[in-house]
Order: sequence, then structure tokens, then C-alpha cells
Amino acid sequence: MPLKVVLVGAGNTGYHLGKHLSEHAELLQVFSRSEEKARRLSLLTGVPYTTSLDELNPAAGIYLLAIHDDGIASVADQLCKLGFSGKLVCHTSGATPVSVFEKTGLKRYGVFYPLQTFTVGRQPDFEQIPFIVEANNPEDSAILDELARVFTKKIYHLSDEKRAALHVAAVFVNNFTNHLFGAGKKILDAESLPFELLLPLITETVAKLHLAEPASMQTGPAKRGDLKTIARHLDYLKRYPELQELYNILTKSIRQGL
Amino acid sequence: MPLKVVLVGAGNTGYHLGKHLSEHAELLQVFSRSEEKARRLSLLTGVPYTTSLDELNPAAGIYLLAIHDDGIASVADQLCKLGFSGKLVCHTSGATPVSVFEKTGLKRYGVFYPLQTFTVGRQPDFEQIPFIVEANNPEDSAILDELARVFTKKIYHLSDEKRAALHVAAVFVNNFTNHLFGAGKKILDAESLPFELLLPLITETVAKLHLAEPASMQTGPAKRGDLKTIARHLDYLKRYPELQELYNILTKSIRQGL
Repeated sequence: MPLKVVLVGAGNTGYHLGKHLSEHAELLQVFSRSEEKARRLSLLTGVPYTTSLDELNPAAGIYLLAIHDDGIASVADQLCKLGFSGKLVCHTSGATPVSVFEKTGLKRYGVFYPLQTFTVGRQPDFEQIPFIVEANNPEDSAILDELARVFTKKIYHLSDEKRAALHVAAVFVNNFTNHLFGAGKKILDAESLPFELLLPLITETVAKLHLAEPASMQTGPAKRGDLKTIARHLDYLKRYPELQELYNILTKSIRQGL
Repeated sequence: MPLKVVLVGAGNTGYHLGKHLSEHAELLQVFSRSEEKARRLSLLTGVPYTTSLDELNPAAGIYLLAIHDDGIASVADQLCKLGFSGKLVCHTSGATPVSVFEKTGLKRYGVFYPLQTFTVGRQPDFEQIPFIVEANNPEDSAILDELARVFTKKIYHLSDEKRAALHVAAVFVNNFTNHLFGAGKKILDAESLPFELLLPLITETVAKLHLAEPASMQTGPAKRGDLKTIARHLDYLKRYPELQELYNILTKSIRQGL
């Protein structure tokens, strides 16, 4: 019997989870407070939508909350008041502990966290994406495993502590890295140089991660202790005090080692 | 008539430039102070090597210095004393101004900078790599163009100032980014989680750069202003004060915007 899912949330993550579920499982309904987002995903999947939790379809086995971390506790509370306290409810957040559900009246709950950055306009390759799943009881853990297998074979059961660590690491390698790409772009923009100049270098930096660990591939003036070049770079960056500060602290960190 | 080149330096950059030149131009000789590196490249290319500048072959048109920034001025000086002052000498450094040659007795000099990170064990795709070339006279500039065309069609003539800016940007997107990958690995190692978990996320972060500019794709707790998650992350990072400091300053920078 296919898994019946109601999806709460139709942002970047909800959009792609919903699209995939509508094709490979049984997606019953899509909820979003934003009528625009709800309708967009409904049109894509052919599944009805609602913008009101009162109208949530009670026939599903799993209620998947692909919403902002801050909204999870409150939506869970509302689901309880609406009579869903016996249903399996899980969130898709890397950062939120499963204990967020403990103070609600929910009896069955869990986490269903795909470790990826989603964008509406870009099709994810779910087979490559690790899913971290956890439930507050073994039966629901098995159900979430089954749901995850709809997406990937890379399924991990992690404690809150380990998932939180994974999320911190993800912030370093995704959010912070992207910010540094933005810094690079800012510097090139000011010189009327195209950002595309840096793409082969960035692509290679990442391709090398498949060969060896990052520390062993660290290069550059900080790693070499090339103080002359560092001084020249800091001098150049005087025009961007905030980038100069980033340069300083990252250089210091590379020199000290991790 | 093919360009005749003598390569001074057989590290990561010299290795790959030498390999390609031996296949697509005329590489006459390889120099490295390290006999091991000189012999390695000599065996690969079938070109003679020397570990002494005294023995440098005077028959080449171009002497390419693929050596550490700090050694450029001193090697250029020695080349002058050895009678090479009328030869075209260029370095392959992004960070070193062309003026490094001004105080030497060299009459013809320039820069031949491939914007990429090289590793001996990994074949670069030179067609994708931008080369930044510059000479102190138009005739030699044309010769360096010809040499660059042996590698790529992506040839740029940039002033010292613009090349220096490009190099600073490269440090942000390559050296600093790789250091953040190392930070992610350190966090996962301590939790006995495999670094491979993060590779799909990293790959996607970079793939998106081909679609839109980095700032428009910034996500995560800092961008959302999700102070609860930030506080949880900082609490987790108490065990790594140096990573906590990086987290703090990068989060602050994302919140302020570039």
C-alpha cells in the first residue's frame, strides 16, 4: 500500500519533496499559507491544495512539515487541536531537535531531513541526497525509512546531537562558502571582471574533495606563510573593511590549522 | 615555428604546464632545485632536466618561472648574471606584480598566470582555464598570447591591479572555501560521520553558481535571521573556539550583507 502523505509547506524544500512524492508515492494534499505557492505546487502535481490548516485532509498516514524552523512547534500544536494527535507528523529541518514535538500533544512524531539545498527552478538528484530520519518509536521509524526509500538509498538514523552537528557542518560548507563566493563576486564586480573567470577554479576546488581531504589540499598565501602577499591583499581590501576582516580571520585560522 | 620554452619550476603548476607544453609546443628543458621533481617531470615529458641554473639551455625563446612568489626576483637576478637578460622571462604568479622584474637587469619580461589550482595527480582541463598574460612590450605580449593559445582560448590581458584583485578573489573562493570544507570535516570527524555526507550539498552549492549570482542564493539561519538556530549552533561550537569565531564573523557578515 503506498504511503499517503499530506505536505505542509510549499517553499523550495516542499516544492521538490511534493513533486517527487506525487510521482513516486501518494500525495493527497498540499498546504501553504501562501496561496501562490500552494497553487503552484498543486498545478505541478495535480493534487488539491489548501491555505487553511482547518481543511487538512485527515486520510493521510504522514504529515510532512516542510516549513520554517520557527513555525514547527506552532503548526504541531494546531494539528493536535484539529484532531491529528494520533497521526505521524515530522519536520524536514536539520537544525530543529525532535524534542520540539514533545511539548505538543502529538503521540507520533519524527524528523525527515534531506541534506541538500533546494531551489524551485532546479531539479534535485534525490538518489544522491542523504536523508536523515528519526521517529519517537520503532514502527514510525520504519515508516519514515519507507518514505525515504522513495527518494534515496542513502538513509541515516542519527541522534539529535549528531544531526545538529551535521547541520552546523552544512552551514559551514554551504551557507558560508556561498557567502565567500559572493565576496569574490563583489571584488570582481568592482574591477568590471566577470565572475565566470572564477568558475573553473571553484569547480576544481570541489572536484578535488573526491580525491583527498580538504586539509591536505589547502594552498595559498596563508598556508605558505607568504606574509608579503597577505600584506598586499590586506592593503587591497582596505576599501572593503568587512571583507578585510573576513580575510584576516580566515587567514589566521588557516595559519593556526584546524 | 613552435615556441621554445625552458621551464623553471616543477611543482604542481610547473608539472602540468610542462606536461602540456611538451605535448603541444617545444619544451627544451626543465629546471628544479629538487632533483626528485625535476626528474619526475623529465621522465614524464622526455625532456632533459637540470638542478642548476648554470646549466640552463640558452636556446629557448621563453623562460617560464613556475616557482614560489618569493623566489621570482632572485631567480630573475641570477638569469641576468648568467647572460639571459635579453630573453623573455615571465612568472606564473597571480599575486606578484610585473614590477618584480623592473629592478632586475631583464629587458623583456611578463606574467603568464593560469587561474587554476593544480595538483600533480589530477589532469587539468586547460581549455576551461583562463590565462592572464601581460608583457612589458607589445611584441612579447603577442608571443605570450601565442603561448597561452597552446592551452586555452580564454586569454585575458589585465593590469597588475586587476590581476591582483582577481587573485584576492581567488583566495576567497578557493583557499578560504577549502578551509571551510575542512571545518565541516572536522565537525563530522568528531561525530564519526563521513565527510561524503556533505558532498552532494557542496556540489549543488557550486552547480547553482551557473544559474544565478551567489548573493541571490544565500540561505541558512544567518540569512533568515534565525537567532534561535544561530544560538544553538554557537553553543554546539563551544568545543571548537576557533570554529566558533569563524561562525560568528561569517554569520555577522551574512546578516550585514556584502
